[in-house]
Amino acid sequence: MENTVQLSQTLDQIISSEQLLAHWQGHRGLTRRLIEAYPEEHFFSYTLGGMRPCSALIDEVLQMADQSMQGVVSGQWSSIGEGSEASPKATTKEQVLAQWDRVTEVINTYWLQIPPARFQEVDKAFGLYEGPIYWFLFYLIDNEIHHRGQAYVYLRTLGVEPPAFWDRPQA
Amino acid sequence: MENTVQLSQTLDQIISSEQLLAHWQGHRGLTRRLIEAYPEEHFFSYTLGGMRPCSALIDEVLQMADQSMQGVVSGQWSSIGEGSEASPKATTKEQVLAQWDRVTEVINTYWLQIPPARFQEVDKAFGLYEGPIYWFLFYLIDNEIHHRGQAYVYLRTLGVEPPAFWDRPQA
Repeated sequence: MENTVQLSQTLDQIISSEQLLAHWQGHRGLTRRLIEAYPEEHFFSYTLGGMRPCSALIDEVLQMADQSMQGVVSGQWSSIGEGSEASPKATTKEQVLAQWDRVTEVINTYWLQIPPARFQEVDKAFGLYEGPIYWFLFYLIDNEIHHRGQAYVYLRTLGVEPPAFWDRPQA
Repeated sequence: MENTVQLSQTLDQIISSEQLLAHWQGHRGLTRRLIEAYPEEHFFSYTLGGMRPCSALIDEVLQMADQSMQGVVSGQWSSIGEGSEASPKATTKEQVLAQWDRVTEVINTYWLQIPPARFQEVDKAFGLYEGPIYWFLFYLIDNEIHHRGQAYVYLRTLGVEPPAFWDRPQA
């Protein structure tokens, strides 16, 4: 019977937990290459249309991932910004990339602790965003893609070729 | 035994087929609102940084979705562009929105025919993009988010407030 159960799970699984992690980290790897490609002298200041500079878009993405993972695993949420002493505002790209790499490890470490049933549990992230955990994780990923797409435009108007969007490893 | 199998599937399912469809259509609804918000006189011409105008970004997203669904379901892929007689190039926003709504129905209709095991099958979309079907569907969704994020910058530089990114119905 155990075999039957396992077979059914494999067949009907749209995507596994490990694949969703690899999907996210693939996107995060691309965002990292975008940060690397971004001219240092423009990263913290250049803007278009009254929007935030690339540094602020990246910081939002980074902080949200960093501060979400404990809550995703445990249901215990800090307030947004509360945990930010772990990541003081970076003032150089080198610091941003170091924070990025630290959060990559945070995600990998916590992810392995997410119980499979947790993805479908409804929770209120940071006491604010209510929905199933998979929905909240998609929000984190999609918000990163959204802001990175904006940073692509910044880069293009600066005359810099961004890294290829499709160049992400498959899960 | 059947009950046990079903219970296990529910518990270990990261996301169901229906939820992934709703997630995509939620994004497509937001993209539709972006098209509605975009000034007609700029939609087909305004660009930044040597990039394509909003109309071309949207057309790419629309055509890829339209031409992919048959292959996603059946493994029979046309060449990209082959099926495009179904959607001649739109020259007004009204035409774009009508095409958008037609493709919404195409996606809904084909999606119901995707066998659950199909999401993990490796295929070569359009004879070009090789990977599991879930990975290709994520590509379609992510590519839409990416280009829509770029269109947000266009809109902001035109002084137009884009629709709220987070305002998408939950699956």
